[in-house]
Amino acid sequence: MSSTCKMEGMELGIIDESTTEEESVTSQWVLNSPAPPTPWRELADSATKTVAQCGEKFSSLRDHQQAPKLVLSVLLGIFPILQWGQNYTVTKFRNDLLAGLTIASLCIPQSIGYATLAHLAPQYGLYTSVVPPLIYAVTGSSREIAIGPVAVVSLLLSSMVQKLIDPASDPTGYTKLVLTATLFAGIFQASFGLLRLGFLVDFLSHASIVGFVAGAAIVIGLQQLKGLLGLTHFTNKTDIVSVLKAVVKSFHHPWNPCNCLLGSSFLIFILLTKFLGKRKKKLFWLPAISPLLSVVLSTLIVFLTRADKKGVNIVKHIKGGINPSSIHQLDFNSPYAGEVAKIGLIVAVVALTESVAVGRSFASIKGYHLDGNREMVSIGFTNIVGSFTSCYVATGSFSRTAVNFAAGVETSVSNIVMATTVFLSLQFFTKLLYFTPTAIIASIIISALPGLIDLSEAYKIWKLDKLDFLACSAAFFGVLFASVEIGLLLAVVISFSKIILISIRPGTEALGKLPGTDMFGDINQYPMAVKTPGVVIVRVKSPLLCFANANFIRERIMKWATQEEAKDNKESTTKTIQLVVLDISNLVNIDTSGIASLEELHRCLVCQGKQLTIANPRWQVIHKLKTADFVSKIGGNVFLTVGEAVEYANHNANCLNA
Amino acid sequence: MSSTCKMEGMELGIIDESTTEEESVTSQWVLNSPAPPTPWRELADSATKTVAQCGEKFSSLRDHQQAPKLVLSVLLGIFPILQWGQNYTVTKFRNDLLAGLTIASLCIPQSIGYATLAHLAPQYGLYTSVVPPLIYAVTGSSREIAIGPVAVVSLLLSSMVQKLIDPASDPTGYTKLVLTATLFAGIFQASFGLLRLGFLVDFLSHASIVGFVAGAAIVIGLQQLKGLLGLTHFTNKTDIVSVLKAVVKSFHHPWNPCNCLLGSSFLIFILLTKFLGKRKKKLFWLPAISPLLSVVLSTLIVFLTRADKKGVNIVKHIKGGINPSSIHQLDFNSPYAGEVAKIGLIVAVVALTESVAVGRSFASIKGYHLDGNREMVSIGFTNIVGSFTSCYVATGSFSRTAVNFAAGVETSVSNIVMATTVFLSLQFFTKLLYFTPTAIIASIIISALPGLIDLSEAYKIWKLDKLDFLACSAAFFGVLFASVEIGLLLAVVISFSKIILISIRPGTEALGKLPGTDMFGDINQYPMAVKTPGVVIVRVKSPLLCFANANFIRERIMKWATQEEAKDNKESTTKTIQLVVLDISNLVNIDTSGIASLEELHRCLVCQGKQLTIANPRWQVIHKLKTADFVSKIGGNVFLTVGEAVEYANHNANCLNA
Repeated sequence: MSSTCKMEGMELGIIDESTTEEESVTSQWVLNSPAPPTPWRELADSATKTVAQCGEKFSSLRDHQQAPKLVLSVLLGIFPILQWGQNYTVTKFRNDLLAGLTIASLCIPQSIGYATLAHLAPQYGLYTSVVPPLIYAVTGSSREIAIGPVAVVSLLLSSMVQKLIDPASDPTGYTKLVLTATLFAGIFQASFGLLRLGFLVDFLSHASIVGFVAGAAIVIGLQQLKGLLGLTHFTNKTDIVSVLKAVVKSFHHPWNPCNCLLGSSFLIFILLTKFLGKRKKKLFWLPAISPLLSVVLSTLIVFLTRADKKGVNIVKHIKGGINPSSIHQLDFNSPYAGEVAKIGLIVAVVALTESVAVGRSFASIKGYHLDGNREMVSIGFTNIVGSFTSCYVATGSFSRTAVNFAAGVETSVSNIVMATTVFLSLQFFTKLLYFTPTAIIASIIISALPGLIDLSEAYKIWKLDKLDFLACSAAFFGVLFASVEIGLLLAVVISFSKIILISIRPGTEALGKLPGTDMFGDINQYPMAVKTPGVVIVRVKSPLLCFANANFIRERIMKWATQEEAKDNKESTTKTIQLVVLDISNLVNIDTSGIASLEELHRCLVCQGKQLTIANPRWQVIHKLKTADFVSKIGGNVFLTVGEAVEYANHNANCLNA
Repeated sequence: MSSTCKMEGMELGIIDESTTEEESVTSQWVLNSPAPPTPWRELADSATKTVAQCGEKFSSLRDHQQAPKLVLSVLLGIFPILQWGQNYTVTKFRNDLLAGLTIASLCIPQSIGYATLAHLAPQYGLYTSVVPPLIYAVTGSSREIAIGPVAVVSLLLSSMVQKLIDPASDPTGYTKLVLTATLFAGIFQASFGLLRLGFLVDFLSHASIVGFVAGAAIVIGLQQLKGLLGLTHFTNKTDIVSVLKAVVKSFHHPWNPCNCLLGSSFLIFILLTKFLGKRKKKLFWLPAISPLLSVVLSTLIVFLTRADKKGVNIVKHIKGGINPSSIHQLDFNSPYAGEVAKIGLIVAVVALTESVAVGRSFASIKGYHLDGNREMVSIGFTNIVGSFTSCYVATGSFSRTAVNFAAGVETSVSNIVMATTVFLSLQFFTKLLYFTPTAIIASIIISALPGLIDLSEAYKIWKLDKLDFLACSAAFFGVLFASVEIGLLLAVVISFSKIILISIRPGTEALGKLPGTDMFGDINQYPMAVKTPGVVIVRVKSPLLCFANANFIRERIMKWATQEEAKDNKESTTKTIQLVVLDISNLVNIDTSGIASLEELHRCLVCQGKQLTIANPRWQVIHKLKTADFVSKIGGNVFLTVGEAVEYANHNANCLNA
């Protein structure tokens, strides 16, 4: 049987060659296209291009300018502040001063709260609001970002580092690990930027970030219950079940409702000012200063009533003074060095994701573009210097950046103003915070959380893509019920599984001619499309024809061909299916299994007296089909368009009839 | 700045609406296509279709036939032998008898060798050549496959099970685990088939199978060094380094060169007959019976010279008699039950991959098609019954199937003949194998290995696809230097990473008009393509515009637009770039990040006074763009083809000039 099939195939092949005269021009274009670049070649090209660009820039500088000017150019590249600083005006400074003072008032209580969330002493939060903003102000290119400690990163750090060392029993050891992780994070961030690996930040899909941040916000809120309710017994775990159990359990111990009363009333006050600020744009300063106002008011209340003696928990001593050096605290020889590096990597990616997302969204509002790789180097450098000066991981804060923007910030001078203000507070006012109730700090953190839960975005994701929504909810519930890392892991795994699923999902669609055009379209997408009698036109929907879907697609196409024939026979049209046109314009790549399945398809079709034709192959695909000798096996029947393939079939049929 | 940009965008939008009269028909087709089915809908449809097909089949049977006929139909479906048995002739039987006897002569020594490879007593290999072929002969649909123990599966089983129980110290416990793993493998295989999960077998790509099998062949050969050299001290590990170390070490112990001499000379004899069989097709029986001949000759030599007393290792006692029941040996309560189930799963997939590949390749030569799901049920059922009758995992053997085919097999009756022959040997001739030297068994196994190493296929893979070759060599070296499981794991991971890499690899290409047609093609693929002045036409090469590549692609497109303008300015053409046509015909899917990046692209282009136009979106993509309101944001500028988009731009330009 096999030999007769081959004979038939050859006969068909002979017919082809005698009739392909007319359409040969375009077919030859397809068949004789130059060889596409190999992966190595492409990689090498892109590397040389990058190097050449850098070299060109450098040499053009060197050729046309003297040494001092060259140095200046390089400096301008590294420190954007030197660029825009030349046009800096008093008006701009007034705006920056106002914005800087506004975010400073929000920053001080938040920094104390986030440091507590990270299981660090309160002053570390304040330290992190001094050095990093200064470094970023001179190296960063975003004008709106407010740099400092942020909630999600604090939670992530504490939840991972406390597995290595218990912060309650060994606070110094714990702090050492956090600072070392900060250094690692900075190094990773800077090297991502220098190696132009900016795309790594994109590995967390938008959907999973929405879910992750919302889950983290709830977890952070739950952690604040300790402060808000003034509980003494609490859990180190972050999942919702453990926390709620701990809360229920702690009610059996004696507890003081004063904390809760104080915290809740100020929480309501802050939320009210937020609401007002949203309603009236002119009152933007109200929600920004209400946290500081609450701190001042509540501290006064406690100080005057000495409520701390009646069981209200207070912040107590905060070590004042400028950031101490922490170089001697960085420890690479600890048994946890490997683990700490891993934590640094995870924190680096999450912090960059937040910072770049925040920076980009505000840059896009102002109409300028933020270079991701550049930003990474700045943030990385910021954290490296931070780790030397007792700061933990800093990044762009969403809530403070929004306030900064609303306050009319012009340049990153507002970061300098903020850092100076925090520095002054550290130097002179930490003693005033002695009587600040911890419940107020907790309520300030809680008040910032609703902004992190974006229900409308989640709904939009649901509407657009159910699988994206799955990644979103997996991240959300993973963070909520398991742990922060598991939530992140789930999000990444689902996001990438989705890519695999879409790429290998076997799909075929029948095409019909769109009336009045030469185009052929999916008959489901374009119901007006008309099928060509005697010809089955199938398009492979999947972008890849590979080991994972080749067999399935082959079977589908065979089914199409057989079913169409049966249908035609039923309608008793005289034409039998003689030609199967396979539109592979969607195929980005094909592998050895894919080619083997095409070969088997061809063999089976020839056995049924049908002929296989290929239309519109992409560059890589036609090259591989040629290399694998598949093109010669189907008698060179490769066409530029489906229309030409169909025309050729009609021509053939006429020749046979004549 | 942002507000002026928006104004410009709106102005452009207004211009659009006044001039889109003509091309609105095809544009409307694109924009008003019906909503594509949701993933749930598609899933439900495919499920109902499958159920409906089964139901139809069943009800058509029930309607037209009486009860006895219905039973007969069902029986025919389950046992294909009843179908083809009706046309069975004496001629066919003569052919099958010859083929069956030929593979039996190859099967007996191979079975003993593979059982040794699996660290089981020799009779288990023979048992596995009795029951499974019988079961498969009545349920399977392939006519050529020879069922029984195979080398790769034996190696895989032993390398994984010996990690749980050491076969040397506890052979009964080890055998129990192997039989339980066989039952699990059978259950997994049958359920894959019943649940129509046939595609699972495709998860090992062709390239990685080539590498894996070649690596496994070398590892199996190395394991045979123990028998061939007559070593007493050997290792349980399978990687090349450990084995070679063990071989070198064992030379320090006293060893007998007689084993090596005997084994090597018969190995040369068998390889010679193989060579002859390949040169002359008529001598196909020579390589098939040479192993049995070697066994008989060498056994006689040892028996006559009593060489076993001079240090030649012999097989010794093989327990004769029919397969004993092994139901009481299946143990689900052992502490290893979970591990054994996992082993069963891995072995199930590898065994199915081999069997389906072998069956398909010979079916395709004979011109019939093998249903993967059906085959899985047969093989699974075969192994389930096998595990009850002291058989370990059986599957289609490549070497014996090839011999079967060459011997002119007609139906699976040859399997029955083979099983009967092995059964008779078990019953009556096991005592004759007492003096068979183990070196001969080793050399028979080694002689089958070169067929598993397919260098020409590896070269073909290298030529076609470098990444596929990477998967191939990773599997090869993983098996060789690490372990069989690590080799498999590497192969799967690399295969799927390749899919991700290809899918998210950011690619864009500039399009030009192909002279004499309405088509636009990649200017690299079609060097004759002509660029349209004043218009940048870019096609997204990647099949997905998603979180992992959206930013990169957006930046690339912006760069294209800006560079082209700079180039145009240099050439001092009067036209500036006003239109960017984005051909997204390649996009199979887009996610929220992708839509966001398109929105940002649009915003940036509008700021530069350019307009974004979309051409030829696929069904899912246009639906999502509509749902996300992107279409209205770009003023509804969506066209069926690039040509129409360009025409529209020219029309617009003329209107502006007039």
